[in-house]
Amino acid sequence: MINIDRLWNRIERLAQIGKTDKGGITRLSYTREESEANELVKRFMEEAGLNVYYDPVGNLIGTRSGTEELPAIMLGSHIDTVPEGGKFDGSLGVLTAIEAVQSLREHNIDCRHPILVVSFKDEEGSRFGFGMIGSRAIAGTLTPADLEHKDKQGITIREAMLQSGFEPDRFGEAKINNIKAYLELHIEQGKVLESYNVAVGNVTGIAGPLWLKFKIHGEAEHAGATPMGQRKDALAAASLMISKIEKITEQYQHAVATVGSLYLEPGGINVIPGYAEFTVDIRDIHENIRNQLEQEIKEYSLQVAEERDVELEIEELQRVAPLSCSDVIQEAIKESIEESGGQIISLPSGAGHDAMQFRQISTGMIFVRSQDGISHNPKEYTSKDDVKQGAEVMVKTLLKLDQT
Amino acid sequence: MINIDRLWNRIERLAQIGKTDKGGITRLSYTREESEANELVKRFMEEAGLNVYYDPVGNLIGTRSGTEELPAIMLGSHIDTVPEGGKFDGSLGVLTAIEAVQSLREHNIDCRHPILVVSFKDEEGSRFGFGMIGSRAIAGTLTPADLEHKDKQGITIREAMLQSGFEPDRFGEAKINNIKAYLELHIEQGKVLESYNVAVGNVTGIAGPLWLKFKIHGEAEHAGATPMGQRKDALAAASLMISKIEKITEQYQHAVATVGSLYLEPGGINVIPGYAEFTVDIRDIHENIRNQLEQEIKEYSLQVAEERDVELEIEELQRVAPLSCSDVIQEAIKESIEESGGQIISLPSGAGHDAMQFRQISTGMIFVRSQDGISHNPKEYTSKDDVKQGAEVMVKTLLKLDQT
Repeated sequence: MINIDRLWNRIERLAQIGKTDKGGITRLSYTREESEANELVKRFMEEAGLNVYYDPVGNLIGTRSGTEELPAIMLGSHIDTVPEGGKFDGSLGVLTAIEAVQSLREHNIDCRHPILVVSFKDEEGSRFGFGMIGSRAIAGTLTPADLEHKDKQGITIREAMLQSGFEPDRFGEAKINNIKAYLELHIEQGKVLESYNVAVGNVTGIAGPLWLKFKIHGEAEHAGATPMGQRKDALAAASLMISKIEKITEQYQHAVATVGSLYLEPGGINVIPGYAEFTVDIRDIHENIRNQLEQEIKEYSLQVAEERDVELEIEELQRVAPLSCSDVIQEAIKESIEESGGQIISLPSGAGHDAMQFRQISTGMIFVRSQDGISHNPKEYTSKDDVKQGAEVMVKTLLKLDQT
Repeated sequence: MINIDRLWNRIERLAQIGKTDKGGITRLSYTREESEANELVKRFMEEAGLNVYYDPVGNLIGTRSGTEELPAIMLGSHIDTVPEGGKFDGSLGVLTAIEAVQSLREHNIDCRHPILVVSFKDEEGSRFGFGMIGSRAIAGTLTPADLEHKDKQGITIREAMLQSGFEPDRFGEAKINNIKAYLELHIEQGKVLESYNVAVGNVTGIAGPLWLKFKIHGEAEHAGATPMGQRKDALAAASLMISKIEKITEQYQHAVATVGSLYLEPGGINVIPGYAEFTVDIRDIHENIRNQLEQEIKEYSLQVAEERDVELEIEELQRVAPLSCSDVIQEAIKESIEESGGQIISLPSGAGHDAMQFRQISTGMIFVRSQDGISHNPKEYTSKDDVKQGAEVMVKTLLKLDQT
């Protein structure tokens, strides 16, 4: 049903804005590049027959009326990028939503529910170290304190909004109350779909990260003069914990746990490490499962510390609540995939998305395959055919949701 | 038999030379402080009735004639220190050797063998990054190229020798051929004797270090978007290896293996480590045992790498041959410990010593307890009573060797 050439062409046109010498795209929020990109998206929305406006924080919103007095179905994503990002992350979701609505119009299909297509302000958080500004505002979770985050030049979000002609003092008015469901299409940014050789997947939830720091205090001693049995080797203890963290996590169906950084003291070749610290990133789409995994990891690690007579402190760095996608929307997505002749693959999202902000409403996400799982990189790529399949699944899902 | 008050007093007097504001001692080779220290030691040697001279590289040598035409028994250690070192490391061995000879003289005990007491030039290597200069010269293993090592000011060993009035061009003449045995007393620099609550121990050998670097190439991917089963986590592989290195090494009686440094890339909390490298320091006093352990560690690690589909490279950083102490001398030391009423504890030396240079002759070492295993530090401490017991064992051992 959708017009893939038009959609592909729009992806390419949008990718010209903020293009860098290195072949990447840099469009940070409230900059000339991002504003120019939104103006182009605004034209696409108008071509799709949407009524378009910017809200007080700078979200670009296109609306289409429904045939009945019902809450809206919201579609969207973001068009800001990380520095040297790719052309699909975010943009694909916004442009596919526009294409879906435009196709419905061309096929003279009305919907019972009003439809909102949103280009959310600053999902990535690359400029202010604080992301999902626009989706927070629409969800009603943005706070005045949030607006005080500064960029590297010391400019606050509030100041940046003002400079771009928006109205930070009216951010509360950006909240939208009457939403039935939120649906977002996004590139996977992983290799799961690729490993199954499918173009489109159903997202079960967004696995909020829990970040812990493990600090192990042993004893630094001469590597030559200290027999094996007399050591309090902080790294040897850490290694046992790290191996076990992997083993424990593999028992869970979808949860992941990653030790991504590790630091040793004193770090000399011939000195037993007296101190080791490492981080653990634990994710699952269900908070109770993540809690259970966290508990298992902590208990085992404390046991190792006790057995080896080293001291273990565990510090919590951040704890983001996961989001489970709506069963109703997941069913609609899976049926749509099946009707399109695809194999149904359901997978969690490890990365965060604007959808995370919509905890109070039914939320669903469609993933399309990312080549080699690469994103946040100029090499980010999704084939035209995969985009087509994703867009078709989005239209089908939208029509199903409209019937519920 | 020995005069502990005299010995203790000499330790304290020598410790005044090179004393720093921080309470440590800094006596680098071919400096005014080291030269002054040797001049004081020279007076002690003369008080002990030794005939004293400096050899061409600056070793201070005191000789005592034997009653028979036999090769000499050599005793010694060094009086140079690391920056901010302690007063026992090295000095204790030199002063105890002098005290042993002086006690024999006072008790009118002649020896069949000539005795040499040596204060070796620069054991620590702190000035030129190249140590055991004096013992190498006496063993005949010093080379002209060795003399080109430079200190931080760019001064070579050769130049430093000349500036101190020695004769680098005649370094070959420092070699001493006719040595029956070499015996050295030294602080343990570890906590083994302390853990057994004994003052004096017999050294089985000097465990030369083998240093390896393990480099693991996995794949850096998003910690949230990559399921456990699809990862090539370089740190998870490293952790398994590190845990197993410890386990394998514990099966050996005396060998030690230590992973002292570890480096990860990219090192982000939410990124699976794509690269990990760590060092392994493997030691045993028997080269064949160290080789066997090395083999086991490498085989297991390569197996882990294969099973986990990561690439492992192993680089050799240094391979120092270990030294086994002479059985005859060890027997003499053990009998002497027993006769002194001590418990016989035999242990390897993890740290290097001048004794390592004397591979061609029978070599033995006596360790005395180090409080808390601390050395290369102003807190380095050995009690007066432990020094006394060590010195008594040295005299007894010397007399036994003289009979063989």
